[in-house]
Amino acid sequence: MKKTLLAGLMFSLVIFLSACGKLNFDSGSGSTSGTKSSAYQTTGAVTSDMYQGVIKNGRYQISSARGLTLQQNTQGSNTYNIKSMENGLLNLSKEQFSPQKYVFQEGQLLSTSVARNWLGRESSSNPDGLNPKDNGKKDPDTRNPIYLQQVLEQDYMVDSGDGMKLGGISIALGLNKVDYYTKTQYGAQFSTTISNATLTEKGEAMAKKVVERLRKMNGVSADTPILIGLYVQAESDSLVGGTFSNYTVAKSGTNLGTWQNLNEQNEVLPVVGNNKALNTNVANDFSNFTTQINSFFPTLAGTTAQVHYVDKELAGMKITINTQFYGETEIMSFTQYVGTSANKLLPSGVPIDITIQSVQGTQAFLSRANGDKSFYSHIFDSY
Amino acid sequence: MKKTLLAGLMFSLVIFLSACGKLNFDSGSGSTSGTKSSAYQTTGAVTSDMYQGVIKNGRYQISSARGLTLQQNTQGSNTYNIKSMENGLLNLSKEQFSPQKYVFQEGQLLSTSVARNWLGRESSSNPDGLNPKDNGKKDPDTRNPIYLQQVLEQDYMVDSGDGMKLGGISIALGLNKVDYYTKTQYGAQFSTTISNATLTEKGEAMAKKVVERLRKMNGVSADTPILIGLYVQAESDSLVGGTFSNYTVAKSGTNLGTWQNLNEQNEVLPVVGNNKALNTNVANDFSNFTTQINSFFPTLAGTTAQVHYVDKELAGMKITINTQFYGETEIMSFTQYVGTSANKLLPSGVPIDITIQSVQGTQAFLSRANGDKSFYSHIFDSY
Repeated sequence: MKKTLLAGLMFSLVIFLSACGKLNFDSGSGSTSGTKSSAYQTTGAVTSDMYQGVIKNGRYQISSARGLTLQQNTQGSNTYNIKSMENGLLNLSKEQFSPQKYVFQEGQLLSTSVARNWLGRESSSNPDGLNPKDNGKKDPDTRNPIYLQQVLEQDYMVDSGDGMKLGGISIALGLNKVDYYTKTQYGAQFSTTISNATLTEKGEAMAKKVVERLRKMNGVSADTPILIGLYVQAESDSLVGGTFSNYTVAKSGTNLGTWQNLNEQNEVLPVVGNNKALNTNVANDFSNFTTQINSFFPTLAGTTAQVHYVDKELAGMKITINTQFYGETEIMSFTQYVGTSANKLLPSGVPIDITIQSVQGTQAFLSRANGDKSFYSHIFDSY
Repeated sequence: MKKTLLAGLMFSLVIFLSACGKLNFDSGSGSTSGTKSSAYQTTGAVTSDMYQGVIKNGRYQISSARGLTLQQNTQGSNTYNIKSMENGLLNLSKEQFSPQKYVFQEGQLLSTSVARNWLGRESSSNPDGLNPKDNGKKDPDTRNPIYLQQVLEQDYMVDSGDGMKLGGISIALGLNKVDYYTKTQYGAQFSTTISNATLTEKGEAMAKKVVERLRKMNGVSADTPILIGLYVQAESDSLVGGTFSNYTVAKSGTNLGTWQNLNEQNEVLPVVGNNKALNTNVANDFSNFTTQINSFFPTLAGTTAQVHYVDKELAGMKITINTQFYGETEIMSFTQYVGTSANKLLPSGVPIDITIQSVQGTQAFLSRANGDKSFYSHIFDSY
């Protein structure tokens, strides 16, 4: 890292760095200390709190198990869960594996076949299955549900002098709060609801097995720290992903350490049906904002928000506005109005992203970072 | 305008204002000086060089002729032309009608029926048609082509003490360099190519008629300045819009003033077939950039750039990268790598926007404003 330059920038721009993500151009930081290391490069970092990624021989190291969670996820299919789990694991990892020291690499230890076996049920042909044996029952309350729906690995690399070596591993186990299943092939969908207590018990038991197995893998030493988090998936019809319920760090050997509980919730506003919003003030603010911007154009297709809470406090909002208007000047005026209205009516002091979309795609977006007083805005235009 | 606040912000943030478009929250600037004026609000401005828009009774004043250009444009259909013409007219207007003094309003003078008549051919049933009479001929070189394909009006409002009044008008006449037509209904498509000299001559003659007609309209006084620009449309298969060839300002009456020539070009990179790039250096830089980022993922669907030249000098680039990768961490790493590569390989000193898309929509974007040294970046993520 060019620390002098960065420090200078941070001094004058500290509140804007997080907002604007000014790129700190520092590629090849992994390739400065040895001859063998020329195969490695890094991506450079957008901000100091974002990981650089590993590039090997000019190519990004994609995960070998890439796409597997998607395939496994056809029943409780919800792409929000996938992105949300990736992001959540990255954020948990930042506390253990500082982006200043570690470089991110997509998981390389779990191959597709290994991950597929783990996600399967335990059986004579699949002794590695982390999900329980099929007990033959079809009733929601007596069958053995599928607890583990997704598994995600992230690797955190450090400089080894002549290249890079594994410095830490993060694993997310994506667990089903609701397990969707059919009694016959192509049959009607049923579901088993799993209690939080059961999910935690099963997840923690799986975590122990996972750490034991990882310790035996090539490249993992007895003291490579392994962060392991339990992610509770949102239901299949949710318009927002789930959250991590707890995590632990196995610093060495197979001792899992102490589990840390997390208290996070996601919700979508406006709430539908008879559901009650998690926080009435936030829901009211969003409702006032929606009312104000809805009157701007004669018709507006709809405005929804993903809302994130940590320890019962509002931690951020991601708002999507759908409009059928897409004239350049219409979008410009609307974007300015949305920004003005958001600053006036939405909760202050939390990061807010607002995306304005039409059937033609993303037209504009506004973003206010943590601690920032106003919105950055961008209109997607054309020459 | 809250000038004190703005001046303070500009002092410390002068290079970032243009990059980040920090919103200056100043709504209702048109409604401070009179009682009757409470019907008017403005949108607030993103930056001091962007127009605020008029809001009347809580609603944006959309243009009455809205959507007409789209309808007229089915033959030479190219949505790039529409956005590009809107943007170009806005930029031309800024020199005449300063955003510090004037507020933007979508054109309110030309109704749909009037605009439709103007865009039609002159005939006994349509004496107002600005396109020439049908001479009955079907041959590309002997028929009378459709010169005028689009018409766009923008209004610039000023404070009138007790509300707002029209302070200036801008009109764009969208002209066909190539006029597409069929000889029979649903028949094969033919085209007439029109020389620049003819286009200028016809366009300037139309401009004179347009100014004469506008002067007679309600709300337009003898000394309301009318900016009128000739926009040469890109061909129907172009992936970038056209450019304005010249413009004039009729300060009062029907005297058109002196036409000002503009020397602007747009092109798409990479060039296809045997076409030659307008500027070899720019084309090479873009090619090097593409090569570098193409190796990042195993497959990348394609990278194209809209390039804008003013007086033969590069004035900006808008790059679109299509990828089939959309894992959150994949997109994060890629975005950082794209930013690093762009800063290293693409021309410096000009504004560059880069959008990263997948079939799932816009995944990330990077933007470097004029005079800025690094890219702002944003990744579209989800809770």
